[in-house]
Amino acid sequence: MSTSNDLLLRTARGEQVERPPVWLMRQAGRILPQYRAIRNRLSGFKELVETPELAAEVTIQPVDELGVDAAIIFSDILVIPEAMGLPYEMVEKRGPLFPKVIKSAADIQKLRQGGSAAAELGYVYDAVRETRKQLDGRVPLIGFAGAPWTLLAYMVEGSGSKTFSKAKRFLYSEEKLAHELLSKITSTLIAYLKEKVNAGAQLVQVFDSWAGILSPAQYRKFALPYIREIVASIDEVPVTVFSKGAWFVLEDIGQLDCQVVGLDWNTPPELARQWVGPEKVLQGNLDPCQLYAAPEEVAAAATRMLDAFGRRHIANLGHGVYPDTPLDGVKAFVKAVQAYRYK
Amino acid sequence: MSTSNDLLLRTARGEQVERPPVWLMRQAGRILPQYRAIRNRLSGFKELVETPELAAEVTIQPVDELGVDAAIIFSDILVIPEAMGLPYEMVEKRGPLFPKVIKSAADIQKLRQGGSAAAELGYVYDAVRETRKQLDGRVPLIGFAGAPWTLLAYMVEGSGSKTFSKAKRFLYSEEKLAHELLSKITSTLIAYLKEKVNAGAQLVQVFDSWAGILSPAQYRKFALPYIREIVASIDEVPVTVFSKGAWFVLEDIGQLDCQVVGLDWNTPPELARQWVGPEKVLQGNLDPCQLYAAPEEVAAAATRMLDAFGRRHIANLGHGVYPDTPLDGVKAFVKAVQAYRYK
Repeated sequence: MSTSNDLLLRTARGEQVERPPVWLMRQAGRILPQYRAIRNRLSGFKELVETPELAAEVTIQPVDELGVDAAIIFSDILVIPEAMGLPYEMVEKRGPLFPKVIKSAADIQKLRQGGSAAAELGYVYDAVRETRKQLDGRVPLIGFAGAPWTLLAYMVEGSGSKTFSKAKRFLYSEEKLAHELLSKITSTLIAYLKEKVNAGAQLVQVFDSWAGILSPAQYRKFALPYIREIVASIDEVPVTVFSKGAWFVLEDIGQLDCQVVGLDWNTPPELARQWVGPEKVLQGNLDPCQLYAAPEEVAAAATRMLDAFGRRHIANLGHGVYPDTPLDGVKAFVKAVQAYRYK
Repeated sequence: MSTSNDLLLRTARGEQVERPPVWLMRQAGRILPQYRAIRNRLSGFKELVETPELAAEVTIQPVDELGVDAAIIFSDILVIPEAMGLPYEMVEKRGPLFPKVIKSAADIQKLRQGGSAAAELGYVYDAVRETRKQLDGRVPLIGFAGAPWTLLAYMVEGSGSKTFSKAKRFLYSEEKLAHELLSKITSTLIAYLKEKVNAGAQLVQVFDSWAGILSPAQYRKFALPYIREIVASIDEVPVTVFSKGAWFVLEDIGQLDCQVVGLDWNTPPELARQWVGPEKVLQGNLDPCQLYAAPEEVAAAATRMLDAFGRRHIANLGHGVYPDTPLDGVKAFVKAVQAYRYK
């Protein structure tokens, strides 16, 4: 099955391309009326994640509606804790909630890991297969996972948090347990991402959503080594590492065996290139709120961003698109990138 | 009235000192049992802020209990929107809530500004006077205010938020109104800080708590010019600018006419020094969660931080101390700094 628009994959492999590919984090979601229509007739978010036909449908919606150059499988980073034995609920307007959290060695002992945990997630691999089939080669399909530190953060904190101070406290006061838990998460993530690739994911992105709340020393101790292990174990497809807020370790991230580095909207493209080095492809990083502006301003801002990045770039926002973003702003962004040509 | 421990002021003025002074953001607060005892017999947080005798009492508690080298007046950055005509409530466990928010030119038109807004805050100046009297020169007293962008963020968003996307949308879609509002806030802040200094504040700190969610371009357009105006208008005492998360404009902040630059815990001291330049005093930046560790580890981490900063440094955390921090950790931090000597 060939891909007719393979711009994303050619760019990720470092090939010379005529313009950057464009997609948006959270493009499959509440910005689309088609998504809201499906979501509103379901019992909840998890039903959508766990039903392969529906997940495939909403994954493809932004390809149809926005004309983006890639699809990203509709799923959730928290399927991994659940597969390991720590179920979660998605509470409307409040976010994820774990009825049980990790507090002790015994809690960690009980968790599944590696292939046996990854085997719990057949519905994700089915969704990937179904999506590839329905996409029929129109654009590449991205798979993703949360990074070990971000998953530990939820498993210890039990919910979202402004500070994740319980999870950080765990790192400072239970260093040995933290490493045990991170190892179990990592072995699960590797098995999971390999299954996703087997099912048809053509690039995988690792999201370290809470990277930015760790100090540089903590990030190097508890986050980076596990990402390095994951990235080194995926040879089959290009890998993107997006450590949101972790500007202070971009030089280290530049040393990872990944092809693409995601950037948040705080990071000036020139500085990112200097820190990451000349080889890797950079992805990002328009402020998601820029899309609230008038379409012509969105287009101008997108073009300025593309000029600043130059080649070896995948156009995206610096964060997931916010649910109340006007479709006109999103479309103006996609259109401006697709009209762009490298000089 | 002389100050017997004037280490903070000597350091802020760039004088040669034997060790760095130490205080903690939010040191007057829930970490102290004395504070919780007072707070629990009051109707709410605002009663404490608005009652000068009580505000003075809790301001002095950390000087007694922790032996820190400075007091910071117990107050709230949101007294400014309230003085301008936008009252707020402090909702237990949820944070600030503004029943009315700024949406239109007419809303901005109605706001008080400058001296007439600042005149509403007599209780703050009384608290400063009362605290100075009771401190009787033991340590210097710091005054503070929120920065214009951070105050606009609350006045438009109406509450705390992970993304402040309503406030950021306002910047992108109502640029002219945003500047009008920022100007009114700025004139109020200048009058307010001058009154605070008249009442006895010996150093003032400007907190831009939500600096880190703006893009570099937005920060330079909507935040920095107003901070510059404030800083330039305060000649009487040293000024600290703490733009949390705004690592990407530290070079610009280094050009401001302030004496001290606050740093969050993500920012490596060496890099901050390089960006800010050799002259200014740096303040910060231990990870607040480091204080959850065992006291001997806290002391070791504090010493490593002091070594990394070298001279021209005020020891502090990189964020306000978290309410559940053990007192032993806080005391180990203060003690380690006070035992330190420059070589």
